Amino acid sequence: MRFVLNHALEKDTFLVTRSGALQLRLVNDARYFWVMIVPETAATELHELDDRIAKSLWVMARHLGRAMKTHCKAVKINTAAIGNLIPQLHCHIVARHTNDEAWPHPVWGRGALHPLTNVTKAARLLTIQSWHGKM
Amino acid sequence: MRFVLNHALEKDTFLVTRSGALQLRLVNDARYFWVMIVPETAATELHELDDRIAKSLWVMARHLGRAMKTHCKAVKINTAAIGNLIPQLHCHIVARHTNDEAWPHPVWGRGALHPLTNVTKAARLLTIQSWHGKM
Repeated sequence: MRFVLNHALEKDTFLVTRSGALQLRLVNDARYFWVMIVPETAATELHELDDRIAKSLWVMARHLGRAMKTHCKAVKINTAAIGNLIPQLHCHIVARHTNDEAWPHPVWGRGALHPLTNVTKAARLLTIQSWHGKM
Repeated sequence: MRFVLNHALEKDTFLVTRSGALQLRLVNDARYFWVMIVPETAATELHELDDRIAKSLWVMARHLGRAMKTHCKAVKINTAAIGNLIPQLHCHIVARHTNDEAWPHPVWGRGALHPLTNVTKAARLLTIQSWHGKM
């Protein structure tokens, strides 16, 4: 079965790169440095992933969390697979600061996305690609 | 260094069992079937865990998610490490239903916990212990 990205995920994110069965995507939101990992599978839950993809997702999530914590001087990294509104499996990694809009709450369901400028988008894509190159 | 559970985590959860370096804890909230995994380490971020503990956390999170999805007839499992208010690393696994209080939002920061009755608490502890026995 050919993988088709959910339309809402596609609308709100940009593809950064692929790594095996994983898509790394940048969320189009200037309020947070926010990355998403989308496994190209039919799974809707983490436990439905085959072990190989699950392992690669975990390695990637921790690798991105480490890089984002440093790069963003983040106070906290929030990592989550929720999917109540969009069942297609996607894992969020969000760099948080005590002065960000949703703090101390999670970011999901709190206000509308603030689209990235072209300059910020380009810079973030390059930055994430450089982290991926160091995996 | 001796591990000391954060006071707020201790207040709102019950120890179910230990598995290696992980504590499995039941959140004292009747609104959701809600379990927490707390690694007995000083880490505050997933990427700070040593690889062995990180691997065991991932296996446990997916095992619990699978069991809770079936047991609770859940529509969705929400899995997250957030920790904005309580930095001590803890991973939530929450069984969600379309008629639960916070749906479709995440559960964190939405309303106060509804303490479990003794009967429900005992039943959940036994249920989770039985899943752990089948790992």
